[in-house]
Order: sequence, then C-alpha cells, then structure tokens
Amino acid sequence: MKCVVALDAMGGDFAPAAVVLGGVEAYHKFQNKLDVILVGKKDEIKSILSKNNLHFPDNKIIHADEVIGMGEMPTDAIRNKPNSSIVVAAKLVRENKAHAFVSAGNTGAVAAASTLIIGRLEGVERPTIGAILPSESGFCAVFDVGAFVDAKPQHLLSYALMADIYVREILKVENPTVGILSVGEEKDKGNKLTKDATELLSKSKLNFIGNVEGRDILKGIANIVICDGFIGNILLKFGESVPKYMKHLLTLYAKESFFKKIKIGLLKNTLKEALSPLDYQKYGGVPLLGVNGIAIIGHGSSTSLAIKNMVLRAYEVHERGITDRIRSTLKEIGMKE
Amino acid sequence: MKCVVALDAMGGDFAPAAVVLGGVEAYHKFQNKLDVILVGKKDEIKSILSKNNLHFPDNKIIHADEVIGMGEMPTDAIRNKPNSSIVVAAKLVRENKAHAFVSAGNTGAVAAASTLIIGRLEGVERPTIGAILPSESGFCAVFDVGAFVDAKPQHLLSYALMADIYVREILKVENPTVGILSVGEEKDKGNKLTKDATELLSKSKLNFIGNVEGRDILKGIANIVICDGFIGNILLKFGESVPKYMKHLLTLYAKESFFKKIKIGLLKNTLKEALSPLDYQKYGGVPLLGVNGIAIIGHGSSTSLAIKNMVLRAYEVHERGITDRIRSTLKEIGMKE
Repeated sequence: MKCVVALDAMGGDFAPAAVVLGGVEAYHKFQNKLDVILVGKKDEIKSILSKNNLHFPDNKIIHADEVIGMGEMPTDAIRNKPNSSIVVAAKLVRENKAHAFVSAGNTGAVAAASTLIIGRLEGVERPTIGAILPSESGFCAVFDVGAFVDAKPQHLLSYALMADIYVREILKVENPTVGILSVGEEKDKGNKLTKDATELLSKSKLNFIGNVEGRDILKGIANIVICDGFIGNILLKFGESVPKYMKHLLTLYAKESFFKKIKIGLLKNTLKEALSPLDYQKYGGVPLLGVNGIAIIGHGSSTSLAIKNMVLRAYEVHERGITDRIRSTLKEIGMKE
Repeated sequence: MKCVVALDAMGGDFAPAAVVLGGVEAYHKFQNKLDVILVGKKDEIKSILSKNNLHFPDNKIIHADEVIGMGEMPTDAIRNKPNSSIVVAAKLVRENKAHAFVSAGNTGAVAAASTLIIGRLEGVERPTIGAILPSESGFCAVFDVGAFVDAKPQHLLSYALMADIYVREILKVENPTVGILSVGEEKDKGNKLTKDATELLSKSKLNFIGNVEGRDILKGIANIVICDGFIGNILLKFGESVPKYMKHLLTLYAKESFFKKIKIGLLKNTLKEALSPLDYQKYGGVPLLGVNGIAIIGHGSSTSLAIKNMVLRAYEVHERGITDRIRSTLKEIGMKE
C-alpha cells in the first residue's frame, strides 16, 4: 500500500508556497510509492497551484480554515484551533486516512498534536524528537531535543531504544553506538539522571559506549547521543545560532575597511558552500518517535526542497515499518507507563 | 598592597614555557601593582628564563616537584600529589602568601584545589566557574560551566549574585541583565529547577529578565546567563568544538578540487581574523567565584599572552575587592549552607 502523507500546507516561514511546491513535486515524482494530501486553506493552495501551472487532484486538498502561528502556545493553540491545518492533518493520521503527518509549522504544536491526537504507542510514556546533526563521522543523532523536561532514567532508555531503530533503518548504520551526554568521559561523571540511566543502558542490548561530552557531538564519537530534552533543546538552539553569529562577525569585519569588505565579499560564496552542512536543519525534517503513526517535523525555514525531502523521509519511515518496530521493541523489554 | 599572584608554571599545553614568558612579562610590566610567584619545577623554570635572557628574582620561584596531568581525576590527583604545582600554588593563597591563584592546568583539579585548599567563602555552598562568551552585544557571561551538577534553586541564585558582582566590577556593565537558561521564553517553560530558581531570582534585587533560550547566548540578549553546571559545561564544550568542526568542513571542501583548494587557501587568513572572537578561550581566564581568595582558570591552550592577561585579570579582581563584595552580599541576603 502506498504511504499517504498528510502535509500541513500552512506550516513554515515560506508556507503555503514552499510547502505546496515541494509537496506537489514529491507527489508527481514518487506517485508509485506515496500519496500526498495537502491540508490548509484551499483557496490559497489552489491559487499557488494555478500560478505555477501545477496539476494536483482537487480531492487531495483538505480544507482547514485556521492556522497556528509560530509563536503560539502549543497546547492552547491546539485546543483553541480545532480547524487548524496542524490539527486537521494530525486527525487524518488518527482516523487512518493517512500514515504520516508532516509539518514545518510551530514545532511545539506539531509535537503536541502528534502526541495528543495521534496518540502515543503502547509502552511509550514520552515520545521523543531527534535532531540529526552533522559530524566529522557523518552525522550524530541527538535524542531528545523536544523540550520534554525532567526526564527519568527509563525515559532516556526508551529514547535510546527508539533512536537505535531509527538510525539502523533510516540512516543505515548497522550497529549504532549510543552515548549519554555528560560532563566527563568517566562513568562516575555526570548528574543523578545520567548515572541512573547509565545503569539501565548498560544492561540493554544497545551498543552503549558510556558518557560522551559536549565536544563529542560534532566529532561524531557516537552515532546516537541521548539526553534530557531540556539540554537537547538548549544545545540545538545554541547550535543553530552559531552560523548567525558568524555572519554577524563577518559583517563587523567587513565594516572595518574597504579592503576588508572586498575580502569578505570574495570569500562569502565559498564559505557558504563549504559550510553548508551547518545548515542541516533546512534539508529535511526530524522524526518524532513513539507516537502511533509517523510524524516528521520540519524546520520553520524549510524550502520546497526540504519539504520534498520530508515527504520522502515519511515514506521511508513507513516503508521500513519504524512504528511497528518501536512498538514491538518496547513491548519486548516490557516498558510500562 | 600589591596583588600577589601565585602562577602555576606547569599548567597548560604550552607549559612551562608559555606560562613563564607570560608571567615574567606581567611581572616586569606591572611591577607597580602586582607581584608574580612562579610555582613549578625550578630547574625547568630557570632554564626557560636563561634561554630567553629573562631576569626574574630567584626568591619568587617556588619549587613544586610534581605535575598534575590534564587527564588526571581532579580530587585523586590533589590527594596523591601534595607537591604538585597546583596544590602548592593554592596553598600559597590559603596561607596568605598570595592573593590569587592562576592556572591553565587541569580545570577540574584547579577548581577542586581552589575549593578544598583555599576554601569556600562563608555562605557559599557551591563556588561557580563562569565562561565569558562573545556575543552580538559584546559578551555573555555564562555561570555555571564548572560541571557542579544537580544544582538546587538557591545555588542558581548564588551563582547569579556572584556573577552580577563580577560583571559589574570587572566587565563594567552598570546594571547587568540576568537570564535563566531554559527551553522557551515564557515563564511556565522550563524544568523544575529553572521554575523554582525563577521564583527566587524574581524576588532578588538582580536585574532579572526571566528565561532565555539557547539561541539567546550568542545574540547577547542577557549580560549574564545562569544555568546548572551540567548544562553549562556541555554547552561550553559543544561551543568550543564548533571552530574545529568548521575547520574539518573547510579541509573536506579543499580536497574536492584544486580550484577549491586555492579558494580555501585564499580565504583562510581572512576568516581566522574575522572569526577571532570565537577563540575567546585563548585570550584570558575564567573566574572561579565563591572561594576565599582569587582563582583564575585558564584554557589548556593558553599562550603567553593569555597567561599575561590572566595575571592582569587576577589583579583587577583583587583591586575591585570582588571576594569581599561577594562575601558581604551573600551575608546580607543570609545565604546559608
């Protein structure tokens, strides 16, 4: 059966145009394996389609009258806007009308809608959002970055188990190494949470390598790095701010003299090209694991290319049966709420 | 009275040479306000002095036979190496033979020696190490980055009170803004620790602006950002790894073609110059606040310039009476152990 992707047409800084263009391209290019439903303001979607001379079946556009803004409080927004594209798209998954929910909208609202509307998998107390960061060894998958705070040791274990499945099946790493983010490599370094979680992770079947430090993420020392969502979220946002700060420094430098301005002008494009992996967020979505269906969350600044990649990613997650694998793994080790 | 600085001549990747050169330069240049004692292997120190034709009084070299390595476990090392330069230098402060202890050696050992040998100030349950990061508004002082984990709300308050004094007096910011590091700007966002600490910080006399996010550090939204040492340490080490990762990306890019190699060769120096603030760690030490004396901790890769700046920083901290100010502030608000 084709993977049906419910795509939030209104989510993201460049929505609906970027979403419609990316979604329609994925639809046409991969018709043999996936189906796309555009969810959002029908008139706006249709106007973009006609402006770009794109063909897209009318019955695959589901009207949603409301839009949840990037700055809105997630749970409030979901409660107060039942006709928003995020809520309507998530409901399509709950009602088995779609397999996957993809959105580049308000991250908190997308996560909340997925958790509350699609629902958690049995045995999953907390779903987890991962970030696939670039690293010297290719990538480093950090779970959780979803701002679920005050995690307990068993939450970190479940994040690791879910991440392990995702990284094996989607990122094709055979026996991924799992590290726990801490303040020193030695086993006795860390806080109460990491020490207790280390106990659990050591006993699991995971390829657990112990503590990793902040500097080990970009080095790619472990394929998967596990942490409380509080620190993961802070780290991710800090990382995202680094390119902006660099741009600020280059601008300051260019202002110092005419000659320096020329020099910056000359290196700008090379730098952008060479450092493009730093812009990892723009090139695809991050998975929300542990919900009873597929949810892919995109960066606010997703381009149509990023949207297309997110739709494809949703297909892969469906095709590899990630949700079922997570369900059975957590059942096997008897994770209880 | 002159500020007497006990300088660990054996600490740092370029020790003893860089330390001796930097320390002796500071001694000669600022003889009117400070005095330097070099602590370490006397023969090595003297050989560096003679090799560089430097004059330095023999009675200001205190012999210490042992060296604590960068990788040693801090408390074990301090216990097992009572004749190490770190322990001997810290003892000089405890015995009132020096006002300040400056070292670019094993950070954990320097912090542990300061806390255990020099001792905590009355009312300070936990000393705190800060990092003065660069930011779009100049700098952002992050406390604690010292890997003291599982902080309690009152610890975060005391970090903020100590940081406030340091930033006012040393970094010359009149009424520094204080933010607490969290996962959203709204008051109800955060974990148990940040919410409880927010209560305390709101009631204090500090210029408290509430939550700040990971991305706000380099933006410089607050002059001071307070966090648990676990997250501060991870964040700092992550930040330090970014320039290294960038270098890796540039090297990969240069390998793609001859033309690209030329392009990277041309931009390298400009980039190094423009992005020099990212190398903040090399240009001075970070303060350890809350001990009964002055302790400045340098980065392992400190150059002789960095060492000189650290000695000067120690002088400033002495001159501005930071230790006494911290003592009286914490007494005033009645912080108890």
